[in-house]
Amino acid sequence: MTGRVTVVGLGPGPDDWRTPAVTALLEAATDLVGYGPYLDRVAPAAPGRRHRSGNRVEANRAELALDLGAAGGHVVVVSSGDPGVFAMASAVLEQLELHPGRWRDVAVDVQPGITAALAAASRVGAPLGHDFCVISLSDVRKPWSIIERRLAAAAAADFVIALYNTRSGHRPDQLATALAVVAQHRQPATPVVIARRVGAPDETVDVVTLRTVDTGAVDMSTVVLVGSSQTRVLDRPLGASVYTPRTYEEPAAPD
Amino acid sequence: MTGRVTVVGLGPGPDDWRTPAVTALLEAATDLVGYGPYLDRVAPAAPGRRHRSGNRVEANRAELALDLGAAGGHVVVVSSGDPGVFAMASAVLEQLELHPGRWRDVAVDVQPGITAALAAASRVGAPLGHDFCVISLSDVRKPWSIIERRLAAAAAADFVIALYNTRSGHRPDQLATALAVVAQHRQPATPVVIARRVGAPDETVDVVTLRTVDTGAVDMSTVVLVGSSQTRVLDRPLGASVYTPRTYEEPAAPD
Repeated sequence: MTGRVTVVGLGPGPDDWRTPAVTALLEAATDLVGYGPYLDRVAPAAPGRRHRSGNRVEANRAELALDLGAAGGHVVVVSSGDPGVFAMASAVLEQLELHPGRWRDVAVDVQPGITAALAAASRVGAPLGHDFCVISLSDVRKPWSIIERRLAAAAAADFVIALYNTRSGHRPDQLATALAVVAQHRQPATPVVIARRVGAPDETVDVVTLRTVDTGAVDMSTVVLVGSSQTRVLDRPLGASVYTPRTYEEPAAPD
Repeated sequence: MTGRVTVVGLGPGPDDWRTPAVTALLEAATDLVGYGPYLDRVAPAAPGRRHRSGNRVEANRAELALDLGAAGGHVVVVSSGDPGVFAMASAVLEQLELHPGRWRDVAVDVQPGITAALAAASRVGAPLGHDFCVISLSDVRKPWSIIERRLAAAAAADFVIALYNTRSGHRPDQLATALAVVAQHRQPATPVVIARRVGAPDETVDVVTLRTVDTGAVDMSTVVLVGSSQTRVLDRPLGASVYTPRTYEEPAAPD
């Protein structure tokens, strides 16, 4: 008998950003596999056996999930946000590639969730309303040189840029370095959105500029959105105020 | 008395990809404003008055929603996917900018949804598992030259690329032209995912390559994902098979 492994995204925070498709899978699972704090976000009523792990053991976690699937389980691997964006879906598929044939009869699929950049954008308006890039600043698994190359390319081509993994223990200055690359192609007044723990009760979302951003204020759970030449801030007393228009006008050259 | 305008995303297709937050707003709205086929996806039980419009009148639709809000309504503007990605959130904010002061007391906010690229990715595995760009191929509101510049930049910097608005009446060859730009920087065997009407009953998702893609098969509701040098296809009998690993290895030069 063989089972199934589904990698799901809880969305960024509150239950009301979690899709009904994911909620149904969580309730039907025989086994729930994930980083402890994410499993804590699954309702206690979900009857599946819980397999908690630390946040640096994605490969072990994926292997465990696939073994449970091979034993006939209906296994759900829990990610925050969307499981396909810098998360567990790739980690599970990496295991399948590393061990060809080992879990051949285990069905593997993915259920999408709202990724943090979309949630952060919604809090301020529509900064991602035009072409954008999503870049992880973590250099644990890729060289910093490719990150800088991508930042420069995205900035030069005037994309809005969403940055994930904006801080890590071993490279506390990575966001400042990244923004310095972008600033070579953008005006100092370019809007920057600093969204910390979007959807959590202690969420903070600040709208600053490339000139005034305080990179020391970010933590592991912060997403940063850097506007394009077109992104603007409206003077609004109530609600949404940062957006990138649908119409593109050629920008002035940077100072 | 003034009201509120909330721009929401239904997600790409089925109700079980719609967040509970959006469902609650739809049920509580006094007025529902949107493109007709999107309003048809709102449950008949939702009591709000429905204001249908065609798909080329975003500005008029936004103005109507804001006027209804100024009259005290709790207005919900309905987008497919995520309302902040090439959708109605920017259209509403554009109206606010065009008419400073006119709707100053109307609260405006945005509720995120699952955007088509994430849903399409989930159907095949995790092609967006590493840095990626999202580009609209519509040149109705931006010059084709900026689209080509962004495609070239994204391809040269080895991003995975998600393409929206892949076909329009007046430019039937835009996808072929776009892929030719990308192909200057990518191997012919690069995986390409063609996802048509993701989430709808007649959804089709095909995995092809840059060499074999049939650009004539796309329509207005097709999202195309072009892999990076790292994206690969696993030989799997069951389920997910296309992914971009978390680890980046320097690619070989293109042929």
